Amino acid sequence: MTLTIAIIGVGEVGAAAAYALILNNVCAKLLLVDNRSSHLDGQVKDLSDSAFKEQNGTRIEAATYREASQADIVIFAAAAKRGIGETTLQYRDRSAATLHNVIEAINPFKQNAILLVVSHPVDTLTTIAQRLSHLPPTQVIGTGTFLESIRLRGLLANQFGVAASSVDAMVLGKHGESQFVPWHLVNVGGVSINELSPSDPIDRDKITQDCRRKGEQIIEEKGAIAYGIASAVSTICTSILLDRRQVYPVSYMQENLGCALSMPAVLGRSGIESTLAVSLGSFDKQRLQYSASEIKKRVDSNIQ
Amino acid sequence: MTLTIAIIGVGEVGAAAAYALILNNVCAKLLLVDNRSSHLDGQVKDLSDSAFKEQNGTRIEAATYREASQADIVIFAAAAKRGIGETTLQYRDRSAATLHNVIEAINPFKQNAILLVVSHPVDTLTTIAQRLSHLPPTQVIGTGTFLESIRLRGLLANQFGVAASSVDAMVLGKHGESQFVPWHLVNVGGVSINELSPSDPIDRDKITQDCRRKGEQIIEEKGAIAYGIASAVSTICTSILLDRRQVYPVSYMQENLGCALSMPAVLGRSGIESTLAVSLGSFDKQRLQYSASEIKKRVDSNIQ
Amino acid sequence: MTLTIAIIGVGEVGAAAAYALILNNVCAKLLLVDNRSSHLDGQVKDLSDSAFKEQNGTRIEAATYREASQADIVIFAAAAKRGIGETTLQYRDRSAATLHNVIEAINPFKQNAILLVVSHPVDTLTTIAQRLSHLPPTQVIGTGTFLESIRLRGLLANQFGVAASSVDAMVLGKHGESQFVPWHLVNVGGVSINELSPSDPIDRDKITQDCRRKGEQIIEEKGAIAYGIASAVSTICTSILLDRRQVYPVSYMQENLGCALSMPAVLGRSGIESTLAVSLGSFDKQRLQYSASEIKKRVDSNIQ
Amino acid sequence: MTLTIAIIGVGEVGAAAAYALILNNVCAKLLLVDNRSSHLDGQVKDLSDSAFKEQNGTRIEAATYREASQADIVIFAAAAKRGIGETTLQYRDRSAATLHNVIEAINPFKQNAILLVVSHPVDTLTTIAQRLSHLPPTQVIGTGTFLESIRLRGLLANQFGVAASSVDAMVLGKHGESQFVPWHLVNVGGVSINELSPSDPIDRDKITQDCRRKGEQIIEEKGAIAYGIASAVSTICTSILLDRRQVYPVSYMQENLGCALSMPAVLGRSGIESTLAVSLGSFDKQRLQYSASEIKKRVDSNIQ
Repeated sequence: MTLTIAIIGVGEVGAAAAYALILNNVCAKLLLVDNRSSHLDGQVKDLSDSAFKEQNGTRIEAATYREASQADIVIFAAAAKRGIGETTLQYRDRSAATLHNVIEAINPFKQNAILLVVSHPVDTLTTIAQRLSHLPPTQVIGTGTFLESIRLRGLLANQFGVAASSVDAMVLGKHGESQFVPWHLVNVGGVSINELSPSDPIDRDKITQDCRRKGEQIIEEKGAIAYGIASAVSTICTSILLDRRQVYPVSYMQENLGCALSMPAVLGRSGIESTLAVSLGSFDKQRLQYSASEIKKRVDSNIQ
Repeated sequence: MTLTIAIIGVGEVGAAAAYALILNNVCAKLLLVDNRSSHLDGQVKDLSDSAFKEQNGTRIEAATYREASQADIVIFAAAAKRGIGETTLQYRDRSAATLHNVIEAINPFKQNAILLVVSHPVDTLTTIAQRLSHLPPTQVIGTGTFLESIRLRGLLANQFGVAASSVDAMVLGKHGESQFVPWHLVNVGGVSINELSPSDPIDRDKITQDCRRKGEQIIEEKGAIAYGIASAVSTICTSILLDRRQVYPVSYMQENLGCALSMPAVLGRSGIESTLAVSLGSFDKQRLQYSASEIKKRVDSNIQ
Repeated sequence: MTLTIAIIGVGEVGAAAAYALILNNVCAKLLLVDNRSSHLDGQVKDLSDSAFKEQNGTRIEAATYREASQADIVIFAAAAKRGIGETTLQYRDRSAATLHNVIEAINPFKQNAILLVVSHPVDTLTTIAQRLSHLPPTQVIGTGTFLESIRLRGLLANQFGVAASSVDAMVLGKHGESQFVPWHLVNVGGVSINELSPSDPIDRDKITQDCRRKGEQIIEEKGAIAYGIASAVSTICTSILLDRRQVYPVSYMQENLGCALSMPAVLGRSGIESTLAVSLGSFDKQRLQYSASEIKKRVDSNIQ
Repeated sequence: MTLTIAIIGVGEVGAAAAYALILNNVCAKLLLVDNRSSHLDGQVKDLSDSAFKEQNGTRIEAATYREASQADIVIFAAAAKRGIGETTLQYRDRSAATLHNVIEAINPFKQNAILLVVSHPVDTLTTIAQRLSHLPPTQVIGTGTFLESIRLRGLLANQFGVAASSVDAMVLGKHGESQFVPWHLVNVGGVSINELSPSDPIDRDKITQDCRRKGEQIIEEKGAIAYGIASAVSTICTSILLDRRQVYPVSYMQENLGCALSMPAVLGRSGIESTLAVSLGSFDKQRLQYSASEIKKRVDSNIQ
């Protein structure tokens, strides 16, 4: 069978991810699934129009959940939009319910399928997805703090006048308010940030804060996030399908914590191929423990 | 100076075009211009988040019209959205007025700049743009029927079970109702369509019609067109900046007709490097004459 | 299992093909096989040094014939170099003997493997390879006149001042002296060559001749051919592994002729997905018949 | 003018570099210069045959030194092959003489040209090239220890089971025996090597040694190095022409040392855009001082 990726939910994020996968030439076939059938038809048509070149010839098809179950990677991007007057809790429960329904409609997955969760709350959904899909923990991955890590790299890159690809920096932990930056791991151009003295001093708290806020800001300014997360998804899928073994911070089941959280992982054809142990300070360790208990509570209330 | 492309108008089309240019690694710098400053900030942030890789490191910046005037390619994608109760004529006049204002704000362009018009009515706007910008006719190009040509290739590709890149087919003339397909030029896998006998016979009228309708359909179904046109823009820009000399149907000034219409052209660093003469039947020739008179009337009513 | 290509024979052609596959990011793993073990080690090391980027991370490994049998595509590039004083016939018999030994060492192939023959005499070797490998005829492909077709496009592209990718032209038949150009299929920028009037008239005989001679010329001038054929191999492999359905002239079993010859074919994950019937003049038809009888004689003398 | 790269010397290294530049789509035009005119013709033909795709359409031309002087980047890859019975010193003097002649034939360079020295002894030649070319020190770059740094990454990547692109590690100093690895800067997947405990312990001396020896080994085994250095050249050229600001270890004039040596630098359209100060131990500092005095002696003996 040819390399196939299925995307569940082709709103702004799902469609932009599809576009990135086409332009980066990642797979042979893209299956798009969405309950809004007219909207889905429009996306299939528009995206097909972009696959006309020798190097960008992915076939795009509307598909059912059952067809999606045979894909090499299944991307869950069916984010509920937050309703007016809806509380955070209600909104989260609704996202979890959507995920629940989708996985039931897909089950069983192809044996070596990778399930990639993009929607929020990403750590909770990734944990739920792992339990409901019956896939091994190494095959269920959430985008987690990948995008925040990219933003951190971008902010530092600007300050040092280098390319974002020349900065190594990660945001780890639970996506959102309690995510954190292990600053001792940050380096620029291969040199530890502690050795560098930039012209303007680096305000670590401000950068951490900017990084956390950037997503909301973009949503306020343009209504949705699309391209940043789409590139993150394409990068993760490439590393998986071509078995690249690149190390990225993504959300996956932490054995010692009982839920999915973002830590660096080696991504290959089996999903999480291996992990890298990062030394953390006691404050960050506590933060992880607390985050895990929060996620587990939410997961338990969503799966009986 | 480094390779720079400016995009005027970063709604769905302009932003998707920016994304394609980033992923295809076409230029060093992207300048985004839009009067809606908060929306613009959001696009700059979201698109910057997608340029974090070694091979996708374009710098994205918000810019003024004056800064945009120094770009190697200036893309006009500031389409007016059609207002409720607005007639086609009113809507077109408004698009022309927007173009007018933008070019006045930009003038003078850098000497060897290429101006690429994406917004509609594309042939009218391309003709106006050439007159107002004072750029040589070879440096002002409209996307014209490029996207419709891609769709034609896609429809035929599906019917013959081959890749769209293995189909050669063009839609020519005035974008919209009077565009036409020179069927004697269509070939599949290098073989003339007249020599091939597909399992299902090809209904040329239906395909021509489907091709013409597809844009509207996508707009009805998903609200806007984005990815198809974005890939077309990226392909045109690559051929120009890397001086590729590829032949594509685009809209440009037809000396004998006095306005811009889509015909095949060789695209390189000087814009329209040369043209290919296509033999047309008398019906198609008359159609071109009529289309040209329509466009010139509209142009004259928009520029005094 | 991850996407794997095996290359049998890593002299100039095999190594350049490996390099093209790495830079074009075609597969996850490259297995290199060569009897000259020290030379092989050098190629593995040098090629591994080129796979250090995010987008170029193919793993390169020295492998045995048995390991190569599990690859998705097996490329036969183990060309015998012609010895001093050796006749054409002796040289050909030696190439056939090498192929024989290699296929016996590999057999059985993975069920859906594609076998791609690059060495010469390519049509004879492709026919032999199909018989000995027990793979279905659609899964055994020779590069045939692909490279000559590219050269034809290049020669015409220069004359018309357009990109080679904007020329459609094919060389068909038996690779070598009796290959031929169906000129009625040639088009430039989507326009039939019969409609175009270039500044310099096209000398079809001279171009056909130049095309046929170019390979020998390069060998005389620089000692070997490497980059042109390497790009051809990479293009064919991409179309297969990503199931692109592109139409290219390659050598494959012609049912009505009883041997492999170059004709246009649709390339996808199953190898030759389908074929396109080309109308040929009676002279070219006779030429094909004659070529086929020549090839079959040679094949019969090599396989008892 | 369109983006142009000139390569002086198209032996194995120069030709492979040309091929990488074509496949990576780095420039519009490649000018090849070589005194062996028949060999040059062969390379132009073979490389042109590889540039037939939409995304790989670089124009390749044989050129004179004067034509090369107008390129955006001029690559010096005209390595003298060491003659039989020739001493290291004689060989080096001969390389320097070749460089001398080439630069005199090219002078003056285009004002913002970048001169990239690939041949050995790279630090000496880079220093000489800067003096003779009259280009600003930031516009003369040697590949230096870039390739050795890639090898170091590759060796560590294998040991940790991750992609080479997920390892940050540099070899610095004078290319050859006295190059060194600042181990405190090495990190894997963004984590300092001092924090990681691989299954097999890392033997730093052995790895440093393997890294130093790998070039010679490849030459012994396959006769020449080609693909690793070709990819390094392509990566450097991309970072320059697209103004990427990536940080790589390359050889460039060290103000405090009076000659070119490899240290990390930010590469952009102006060449060395800025530098990163690396903290070194006193032993490595002494080593740099000593290397510098060696290089300066050699340079002085080659330029009167």
